[in-house]
Amino acid sequence: MPDTPSPGRVGDVRRQNLALVLAGIQGNGGATRAQLAAESGLTKASVSSIVADLLECGLVREASVTRDGERGRPGTGLVLNPARGALAAEINVDYLAVGVLDFSGDLLFHETVERHNRASQPADILPILVAMARRAAIEAAGTGVELLGGELTVPGLVETEHNVVLAAPNLGWADVELSEELPTLLPDAPFGVSLSNEANSAALAELWFGHGADHGKSDRFRDFLYVSGEVGVGGGLVIASQLFAGPQGHAGEVGHVVVHPDGPLCACGGRGCLETFAGQDAIYSAAGIDLDSTAQHMAQLLSHARDGDERAISAVEQAGRYLGIAVASTARVANISAVVLGGHFAALEEWIAPALRRSLGHHAPGLIPEGNVAFSELGQTGALIGAAATSVRRILGQAYELIP
Amino acid sequence: MPDTPSPGRVGDVRRQNLALVLAGIQGNGGATRAQLAAESGLTKASVSSIVADLLECGLVREASVTRDGERGRPGTGLVLNPARGALAAEINVDYLAVGVLDFSGDLLFHETVERHNRASQPADILPILVAMARRAAIEAAGTGVELLGGELTVPGLVETEHNVVLAAPNLGWADVELSEELPTLLPDAPFGVSLSNEANSAALAELWFGHGADHGKSDRFRDFLYVSGEVGVGGGLVIASQLFAGPQGHAGEVGHVVVHPDGPLCACGGRGCLETFAGQDAIYSAAGIDLDSTAQHMAQLLSHARDGDERAISAVEQAGRYLGIAVASTARVANISAVVLGGHFAALEEWIAPALRRSLGHHAPGLIPEGNVAFSELGQTGALIGAAATSVRRILGQAYELIP
Repeated sequence: MPDTPSPGRVGDVRRQNLALVLAGIQGNGGATRAQLAAESGLTKASVSSIVADLLECGLVREASVTRDGERGRPGTGLVLNPARGALAAEINVDYLAVGVLDFSGDLLFHETVERHNRASQPADILPILVAMARRAAIEAAGTGVELLGGELTVPGLVETEHNVVLAAPNLGWADVELSEELPTLLPDAPFGVSLSNEANSAALAELWFGHGADHGKSDRFRDFLYVSGEVGVGGGLVIASQLFAGPQGHAGEVGHVVVHPDGPLCACGGRGCLETFAGQDAIYSAAGIDLDSTAQHMAQLLSHARDGDERAISAVEQAGRYLGIAVASTARVANISAVVLGGHFAALEEWIAPALRRSLGHHAPGLIPEGNVAFSELGQTGALIGAAATSVRRILGQAYELIP
Repeated sequence: MPDTPSPGRVGDVRRQNLALVLAGIQGNGGATRAQLAAESGLTKASVSSIVADLLECGLVREASVTRDGERGRPGTGLVLNPARGALAAEINVDYLAVGVLDFSGDLLFHETVERHNRASQPADILPILVAMARRAAIEAAGTGVELLGGELTVPGLVETEHNVVLAAPNLGWADVELSEELPTLLPDAPFGVSLSNEANSAALAELWFGHGADHGKSDRFRDFLYVSGEVGVGGGLVIASQLFAGPQGHAGEVGHVVVHPDGPLCACGGRGCLETFAGQDAIYSAAGIDLDSTAQHMAQLLSHARDGDERAISAVEQAGRYLGIAVASTARVANISAVVLGGHFAALEEWIAPALRRSLGHHAPGLIPEGNVAFSELGQTGALIGAAATSVRRILGQAYELIP
């Protein structure tokens, strides 16, 4: 039967070949043209032609490399240009943050400012974030890194095509369009600034740099739920080592899985959501910590728990128990077999972990093996790193289209 | 940049072109070669060559067609050969069933036998099912339909590569391998017999023939949860008009979403699962129906509910309430915005529907629009039709590979 090309196939193949080469360079910094050809199945001539384009537009750079276990003179390898980078900005309920990631994946700079953003107005927050972003861009320029684009990540449901925060109940935001505000975070960046959900960003960071990353580990997770513990509880699903965003991009919302039929009212308008038992405020309240005090609530909680305060410990254990219910339900729905906990859940691992494992064993024995309950090691910058790394990938993706 | 073919691309393109043509015929029975060429973007010569192969191996047949609104003499259209078909067999907790679907999608024959299969042995059930399958094949042959393959669908988690029923707790089956038994259902079929999950089969039937099907309806569901109400409660997720099976093929298990932290022990070993509140036995018990009686429990329940018996009505409403919790949680995890209820939930629609809508509004207001709560109209044969239609698709898929 004849091999009949459909319209547009040549362009598709070109894009696909470019993507193969860039993915090869990203996945294996320092690969030579010959190695890229061998890995991608493309001819050396094709690879050389693509690499010439990528060098010309500054996305990649040549680097001398000698590889372990290889003899002879060093070859000329290719790396993503570390003099290019992306900005991440984060609005959360109790802080603002910015960060700069270069194309080699190093977090060059980050800054976090505590701020109560509950029931806030976007117009109050954006100018502060713009000033922080400006400082970040100056820091980046000082180390010779040009920022090509960025991403703003928020604790709420977003619609990325029109840059709308559909619902961020803990900020008090609903249907906030940010198309005009986003570019002000990075006015001269050729690839602009996109918008994302904070828990999805943190899940992607976990996929690319944490428990989902291939650092030669055979036990990395390919299918997992990431749970983000902040004032709100967010989640992101990774399936087959890719973010599973769902039809509207809102999948993995584990914070609003119902864990008690008679549970309290949630900020989302529902009742009995996980967030009402395992969000920071719920834990502080159950632990008897005064939410109106200006003290560091998490520091207080940790100190009480370490001192063996029963109320603090049982508050955290209750969160772990309900977390187990929501994780079990999520695993039944999405057929994932591992969970990574971040944010305050990671800080409280000592008490959360046993309660969560007991709850999983009680409600869904055998569903998630003990070793597949993990805690994030990325710390507070997870969402920031994920948002910046997403921006880098978006820039590389859009750059393909621009190469003539 | 050169268009460099990677190894194996010619074969891929050939398969892809075959798939395009077959999909065109399946989606638009009676399409002419010219229409298939226009729809697929292939040349008429390519389409004619592919169609010649398909005619020769008997998968498609020519048919005279005159289309509404078109003038002139009738063209020669192509249809899937209605003289070819697939068998479906179903083992459920309280019945066995078989059915025959021809390639045009008509259910030619089906038979259901009531039988208590709880704590059953596969060796006791399979011979009965084989006899039923033989009758079905004789019926098919009598109408001139040759059965090319089939599918057995069961109420449990399956592993399709090695034909293992991993866990069907309501049958009492665990790790039952059926590789030797499956072919005996249809000994001479060239494409053999596969294994599937009953709720996934029913979800596929809903996608292809029910609320997910494109009958010119603009309001068909592209993303939905199908909930199967039998003795057990199963589920299947359809996302972007495709079954979302998850990493191991077990996604959508809404029957084991936890709806009460202190709920009763479930057949799965967990506690507080939806099934313990909304499975048939749970509803009968709550309604005060004697499970040891040999009477038709569902007929009793319906009769009591129609007579206004408060205990029966509140039992069904409780099921609807917990169903709402599990559907809300599933929608949060998988980002679906519609639900289709089948099995006993469809039979009990009058009482289930309001309770379910109230519960959704209470636990997740705005998440699933009122009009997106639907009840299956496929009746008891949903899973059977889905399994047979899956078998037809599998046969067409494997047939591509066999055409020289």
